[in-house]
Amino acid sequence: MKKNELPTLYWKKGQLHLLDQRLLPQKIEYRLCSSYPEVIASIREMVVRGAPAIGISAAFGMALAAREALIKGYNAVEMREYLQDAGALLGQARPTAVNLPWAIARAEKWLRGHLDASEGDIVEGLEQLALLIHEEDLANNRLIGKKGSDLLPRKGSVLTHCNAGSLATGGYGTALGVIRAAVEQGKDIHVYVDETRPLLQGARITAFELEHEGIAATLVTDNCAGHLMATGRVDLVVVGADRIAGNGDVANKIGTYVLAVLAQYHKIPFYVAAPLSTVDLAIAAGKDIIIEERSSSEVTHLNGRCMAPEDMKAFNPAFDITPAKLITAIITEKGVLRQPDRQKVMGLFDL
Amino acid sequence: MKKNELPTLYWKKGQLHLLDQRLLPQKIEYRLCSSYPEVIASIREMVVRGAPAIGISAAFGMALAAREALIKGYNAVEMREYLQDAGALLGQARPTAVNLPWAIARAEKWLRGHLDASEGDIVEGLEQLALLIHEEDLANNRLIGKKGSDLLPRKGSVLTHCNAGSLATGGYGTALGVIRAAVEQGKDIHVYVDETRPLLQGARITAFELEHEGIAATLVTDNCAGHLMATGRVDLVVVGADRIAGNGDVANKIGTYVLAVLAQYHKIPFYVAAPLSTVDLAIAAGKDIIIEERSSSEVTHLNGRCMAPEDMKAFNPAFDITPAKLITAIITEKGVLRQPDRQKVMGLFDL
Repeated sequence: MKKNELPTLYWKKGQLHLLDQRLLPQKIEYRLCSSYPEVIASIREMVVRGAPAIGISAAFGMALAAREALIKGYNAVEMREYLQDAGALLGQARPTAVNLPWAIARAEKWLRGHLDASEGDIVEGLEQLALLIHEEDLANNRLIGKKGSDLLPRKGSVLTHCNAGSLATGGYGTALGVIRAAVEQGKDIHVYVDETRPLLQGARITAFELEHEGIAATLVTDNCAGHLMATGRVDLVVVGADRIAGNGDVANKIGTYVLAVLAQYHKIPFYVAAPLSTVDLAIAAGKDIIIEERSSSEVTHLNGRCMAPEDMKAFNPAFDITPAKLITAIITEKGVLRQPDRQKVMGLFDL
Repeated sequence: MKKNELPTLYWKKGQLHLLDQRLLPQKIEYRLCSSYPEVIASIREMVVRGAPAIGISAAFGMALAAREALIKGYNAVEMREYLQDAGALLGQARPTAVNLPWAIARAEKWLRGHLDASEGDIVEGLEQLALLIHEEDLANNRLIGKKGSDLLPRKGSVLTHCNAGSLATGGYGTALGVIRAAVEQGKDIHVYVDETRPLLQGARITAFELEHEGIAATLVTDNCAGHLMATGRVDLVVVGADRIAGNGDVANKIGTYVLAVLAQYHKIPFYVAAPLSTVDLAIAAGKDIIIEERSSSEVTHLNGRCMAPEDMKAFNPAFDITPAKLITAIITEKGVLRQPDRQKVMGLFDL
């Protein structure tokens, strides 16, 4: 996907347009959000997904809330109350990606920093902030790509899980950003794409992105990773993150931890690529990260059909926790943390 | 499923009826095979699957071939030639399950042992042999269940992969036979069922069997295993096998090896339950087992719809190899081999 060819989201005439990722790759359709509750619904239903993209969407959600308040004829005080509620509700849309509360906290900080702002100033200020957060994310991803691409061999095979690509972010991608940058440098990279059950973000989105980029890719079921590694087909693993604890433990799409254990067993490097906005210093360790449990039907049903006995219940955690000790390095826009630990993670924020 | 309530296959009036497992659990439909090429097609298309069930089907395939030859008016010499071809072709239906060539070898051994048999004798003899192989398998599974159930705690949670149940065998099941026997002994067992992509034998068949048995079960995606183990939800893993090498290495459904690595990392016992007919002494080690690669579309398509970009290719090995060193024990009808190795595997055949 060329830059801007198929944006994850864009802001136009005071409205947020979100690519409906549930319909990919068969259908390219944008959902228009004119109010912050529509943004909440879009995050919850996974029209938009991927921690950085969720954060950017939430920032635009705050901008939309300011516009709603203006249309309702609220004064600045009433607008701030409306925004407080909007922030609280947007923050609860999904529990695991920290970029969501991070983006809302930035909007709230802007509000605290502009206590004399008029209604119009607030609308303008929050819109500009959301656009800035979006731009920053894209720039950070390019930096992540640049720093991470050095870790890839001149010729080699990478396994990735879920989608940490352009469509999980403001553009370019984190894990896929690393791959993309390596290919841009002329490296000969082949990607094994985990389909990533239950929602198949690998098959539907990562495969789609790589194909558009012209990067060699092969789809596999999530069951294949062990066989791929045991038969020497994978040189390294790179994934994204939904929340990184202060000690370097990583919450990411369910199945990520499986790859980390397999990678260690096979002595293959395991990399996590994520911006600093994914780091949550308020969480000491991975065990304290709340893991979202989603509906049983995401597992039992596909394409509208039930694949299991009708009354069978599925356990469907959306994420798992990979301890820092299994991570070869975390790749951020501020640098590569090899053998991440609390000290190294804290060090990122002292720069 | 109560015994005989929904048999994997049955022989009636000289015809083989195979439960079409591709349609489960939504549809219960038997495919009737009147000729051995229909049996080959049914094995290849996975109407019938599971190593022991494939072996039994092949034995009936030989019985059908004899009947076909009789109907064609062949004499005993011509019938033997026809059976030779049938055996060669049946043996190539799928490459990994050794029960397939094992069953055919038994039919061929019967033929060599009855060189004076008339056409009618051969038809009768091969039919009786197939029925015997079926009965033996059921009896072996009950023994496997009995011996294996001692390994299960009074109360605990088991993770299984794919389907090594009644419907993978002549009845009762291997891995599920162990669980079934433990429950019959009054043990309080809960089963986590890996859905088992790409063909979802866990979601479609294992979940269905357990529900019919009234055994507590929860479905999970294959990605969940790491999280389940890390959060203390799994006490042991038990799976079946498609071929066991002379040194105890095991070929089983793709993803099995992933569970074995995870189980070792989490210090959880990993058991393989299989009859001696699954052991292939001609294969020294797992690396020599041929792993079937199935069609890309099994991964990219589901319920008739493509889930990936239209031209995306998938790598789809049907099995992987679990080295003996990762296996806590192999449970057979002749006993439990703890820390299996060549000597212990060979010992089974000296009894």
